[in-house]
Amino acid sequence: MLKYQEIAENIEDHIRAKSLKQGDKLPSLEEFVAEYNVSKSTIRKALELLETKGAIYQLRGSGIFVRSLKRRGYIDLGLSRGFKKDLSAFELTAQVLAVEVRTASPEVAGNLSIEVGSAVYYVKRLRLINGQPLCIEESHYDKSVVPYMNKEIVTDSIFYYLRTGLKLNLGFSDKYFNVGKINKEEAELLGLEVNDPTLRLESIFYLATGQAFNYSKTTYHYQQSQFFIQATSSG
Amino acid sequence: MLKYQEIAENIEDHIRAKSLKQGDKLPSLEEFVAEYNVSKSTIRKALELLETKGAIYQLRGSGIFVRSLKRRGYIDLGLSRGFKKDLSAFELTAQVLAVEVRTASPEVAGNLSIEVGSAVYYVKRLRLINGQPLCIEESHYDKSVVPYMNKEIVTDSIFYYLRTGLKLNLGFSDKYFNVGKINKEEAELLGLEVNDPTLRLESIFYLATGQAFNYSKTTYHYQQSQFFIQATSSG
Repeated sequence: MLKYQEIAENIEDHIRAKSLKQGDKLPSLEEFVAEYNVSKSTIRKALELLETKGAIYQLRGSGIFVRSLKRRGYIDLGLSRGFKKDLSAFELTAQVLAVEVRTASPEVAGNLSIEVGSAVYYVKRLRLINGQPLCIEESHYDKSVVPYMNKEIVTDSIFYYLRTGLKLNLGFSDKYFNVGKINKEEAELLGLEVNDPTLRLESIFYLATGQAFNYSKTTYHYQQSQFFIQATSSG
Repeated sequence: MLKYQEIAENIEDHIRAKSLKQGDKLPSLEEFVAEYNVSKSTIRKALELLETKGAIYQLRGSGIFVRSLKRRGYIDLGLSRGFKKDLSAFELTAQVLAVEVRTASPEVAGNLSIEVGSAVYYVKRLRLINGQPLCIEESHYDKSVVPYMNKEIVTDSIFYYLRTGLKLNLGFSDKYFNVGKINKEEAELLGLEVNDPTLRLESIFYLATGQAFNYSKTTYHYQQSQFFIQATSSG
């Protein structure tokens, strides 16, 4: 983790610890510089990261203010990570339905920008929230980036493994979604009726270098899931 | 529009005009400084805006690269504006169902952080894409911020009116959504069956000062709508 990321995390911890609310004023750029004893540009990068994440907003000539979220228990789709952090008040577990090496179909290859037939790890999981079905997740990992997975690894947080076990430098992601009706297999796994509604999310995750490494499809239980995005100014 | 925003728009136009693809390299910071004849910090702000919007990514020591969207016709939920720009290939129209001054209910007042009973403009519209129902939209505008609206104004782009007519400086937004089933009134307006699926979006829009001014609920036609988010790194 780079210095500015550490500082950003530190400021976020401070906002949480003090239960600061939307519109509460934070120290100025200069005060942060003095507090952390780093350069202006490091503080500026930390503040920009927090602004992008929707944690603060900066008002020219007025200062830096807290941007707080009014509701809890929503999954944040604006960040490139799993949803464990958003749902930390709940018990999240996973039932592994498959972990195997497959060859990439044209759809998977297209989304990962690899050759059709390349080796990918295919992981299918039913994810549970407080023991209730939350979503069905089917993921494809480019095997040239993620050379090894097993049942034990995918039972826990896969992203934690990528970051700490494989030391991958994770970057951004593209997320596409729409609403539809579930089929028989999905209804059985989620404990719902056929044709009940669902949010279908497709995600493509990239390394910091811009290389795609993961293409996932997630089918959510409509009564268990809610989502949010803290959108930035359109500039 | 500030200088760095103009430059950001200019770079985006260039990416579009040249049909640049994901991973295509852009000029360096120094080259942009020379091209636009502005300071490094102005170019840096323009690039940060483009990074936040998901249009580029910067790789320390390697350069600045294009981040392109693989799919067209998706509504971008990551930006704080209407969806007209995302759907510019389609004909978007609105059928106005109501424009009237109301008093804020506890729900509306809570989301706008105003007193219960304060005056708000209530606008209900059926929005159409190529003549087909796309969504039902119910919006509440704090009347102390938006003192006047009429049918003519809300038939066209409301955000355009806010920006150019009222000269409001629009900021960020919070978006909450979940999936559910539509009721009889919604089914009739959207031309669907009762209990068909829908994405229900609640948005709170803020001025650049952090003051909430608009609380909207949108109910989407599930077959006409698809969404995307270009998520940034979680840092």
